[in-house]
Amino acid sequence: MTFEQMWTDLSPVGRSSTSGGYFRQPWESAELELRAWFREAAKARDLEIEEDPFGNLVAWWGFEARSARTSTTGKSVLTGSHLDSVLDGGAYDGPLGVVSAFAAVDVMRERGVVPTRPLGVAAFVEEEGSRFGRACLGSRLAVGAASWDDARELTDRDGVRLGDVIEGGTSTILEGVDTYVELHVEQGRALIDHDTAVGVASGIWPHGRWRYDVAGRADHAGTTRMEDRADPMLTFAMTALAANKQARLSGQRATFGRIDVRPNGTNAVPSHVTAWLDARAESSPALATLTAAIERQASERAERDGTQVTVTRESISGEVVFDAALRDLIGAGVPVLPTQAGHDAGILQDAGIRSAMLFVRNPSGVSHSPEETAETADCLAGVTALADALTGLVT
Amino acid sequence: MTFEQMWTDLSPVGRSSTSGGYFRQPWESAELELRAWFREAAKARDLEIEEDPFGNLVAWWGFEARSARTSTTGKSVLTGSHLDSVLDGGAYDGPLGVVSAFAAVDVMRERGVVPTRPLGVAAFVEEEGSRFGRACLGSRLAVGAASWDDARELTDRDGVRLGDVIEGGTSTILEGVDTYVELHVEQGRALIDHDTAVGVASGIWPHGRWRYDVAGRADHAGTTRMEDRADPMLTFAMTALAANKQARLSGQRATFGRIDVRPNGTNAVPSHVTAWLDARAESSPALATLTAAIERQASERAERDGTQVTVTRESISGEVVFDAALRDLIGAGVPVLPTQAGHDAGILQDAGIRSAMLFVRNPSGVSHSPEETAETADCLAGVTALADALTGLVT
Repeated sequence: MTFEQMWTDLSPVGRSSTSGGYFRQPWESAELELRAWFREAAKARDLEIEEDPFGNLVAWWGFEARSARTSTTGKSVLTGSHLDSVLDGGAYDGPLGVVSAFAAVDVMRERGVVPTRPLGVAAFVEEEGSRFGRACLGSRLAVGAASWDDARELTDRDGVRLGDVIEGGTSTILEGVDTYVELHVEQGRALIDHDTAVGVASGIWPHGRWRYDVAGRADHAGTTRMEDRADPMLTFAMTALAANKQARLSGQRATFGRIDVRPNGTNAVPSHVTAWLDARAESSPALATLTAAIERQASERAERDGTQVTVTRESISGEVVFDAALRDLIGAGVPVLPTQAGHDAGILQDAGIRSAMLFVRNPSGVSHSPEETAETADCLAGVTALADALTGLVT
Repeated sequence: MTFEQMWTDLSPVGRSSTSGGYFRQPWESAELELRAWFREAAKARDLEIEEDPFGNLVAWWGFEARSARTSTTGKSVLTGSHLDSVLDGGAYDGPLGVVSAFAAVDVMRERGVVPTRPLGVAAFVEEEGSRFGRACLGSRLAVGAASWDDARELTDRDGVRLGDVIEGGTSTILEGVDTYVELHVEQGRALIDHDTAVGVASGIWPHGRWRYDVAGRADHAGTTRMEDRADPMLTFAMTALAANKQARLSGQRATFGRIDVRPNGTNAVPSHVTAWLDARAESSPALATLTAAIERQASERAERDGTQVTVTRESISGEVVFDAALRDLIGAGVPVLPTQAGHDAGILQDAGIRSAMLFVRNPSGVSHSPEETAETADCLAGVTALADALTGLVT
């Protein structure tokens, strides 16, 4: 099972023949297939599987020492990423980190490395939040940053409760883990500009999701004069344009990528539009300024339209600064990049597990898209960098 | 079965307990229940049911003469409307015309009217186009303005083909019919301004539906700089605002009430937005000017956004002028109003069956909405006006 072989095995799973993108929502068929593959990859390497009540998986090298969990066996080191995708996402976001982790174990064994600490390959569940709407849900539950009592009530688009999909409980999967290294495909263009295959993360921008509920009045699209309407689609439209403009002018990010219109009929003025704002900024004050400006413009337009806007913060993640010493250890001499994307590594870092991320160049510069890609040579450079980093950590 | 009793019987069918609006899509449970009710109402009056292969229903008073279809029995007169609703629509749009037709038959019989020509109460199917996307589909098929070969391939939102729902074929239901009178709840505020319960239609504005397909590029909502995106949501948003503005300035109508976003995820820039424009104007040239202006603004914005817009005309209905002599006959002394809504009466008028419409005042001024309403006294005035008109036509 070389890197290339593993990559070929995963490539058809959950792939849409229409778009070429991936649909790997947690606990649905494609993702279950990936989990089965993970177990096989672990078994082929004599790694022992540990699974927590949320479905987070770790394949351990040095499981006996891990199981003992005594101070004399040393703290555990984790590497890995996630297997799920956004709707119609790319092949690399997530799986590249898991496949590279298994490949790094192979490289270390070829080099004759004998770890003195347990080393685990992790796959955290529901990282994208594409089914239950909460990003990094698996790692949040594992570190205790999300409570199962709240999470069990989350529902997917079909109204299925998470509590009816998994049993839940308490996770001990991160017990005794003090270090996490996540390799990830780059989601921007910085490594293209640096002309380098591999980079290391400085930190994660603060970011969050806000739900905009715009209530108007349903009306006949033909017989109702324009001036007699209260059309929430107009309020949404102006808000989406305002979000884009505010983010563009300030060098931040703001996106309305999801919308739900009621009744969504061609000849009816909608009664209700719900849309989700994804906003990210270089600092928490900058994020607060950005989201306040968007909300203000939405309210002003709502007044003109005769609609009502309610803004609900669904989630927020503060700025993450990765462990500087770990970063210097694993990324000596490579470019140091900020990222605007949330990652499980950020959740673990926030929970007191020193964490770092390696990025692999992405010639498309795009992610969360079928076009996301990486060259095999760059991926193998990533595997080498990861094997080097892990060797330094466990010997 | 008084008017009030019939109205009470229909009121719970397909009603959403959440919004109070109606979901009566053709060949789904609520609409099938309405069809059963129609058969019972006909049976209770000893009217004979005729149904064509598309599900259009007529309950005949004078069925034997109708069946003979000879020149000596005289041409048939039809009244009625439709039973289906838009998604989350009102109670009156459609059913008021059918209930009033049965009630008018009762009034005529109480008066001792003996028709010399067959009189039918009609319920045309899929008038709203809310399931298969083609407004007035039943009447178009009945008059031959739509072909079954095309219509059988129409699909609903779940991908169900119309050809798999009904058998189809050739309709003879309008054979020998030379007059149609449709009573309908008013969908605007003109009768409020006239302070009158009943009005009569002059004609129907030309109107149509255009599908806007905006293709962009899926991207990560966090890591992709605003200036590197090709976001179709922005192109849509500007187009929706432009449509509203163009229609408002020219006194016409333009609405984007339906949208479909792919992949519709919070943290992904969409790859594709499809939205439907409903546009109506007082004349065909005015409609062409309006839709061209909207399309031009969409294209200009698409160029800025790096997206591609394709506009497809899905349907268009030219201006309808109702038969002037019939209008004067049935609506002497009442306000004459244009309407911006398509109706089966327009399809029949276009097919050479002289047609007219009576409107009943709607104190909310809104339609295609749970708020649509009418006072019982106004409805009964409508029944009287309809009975008077039909008496004049069949005696």
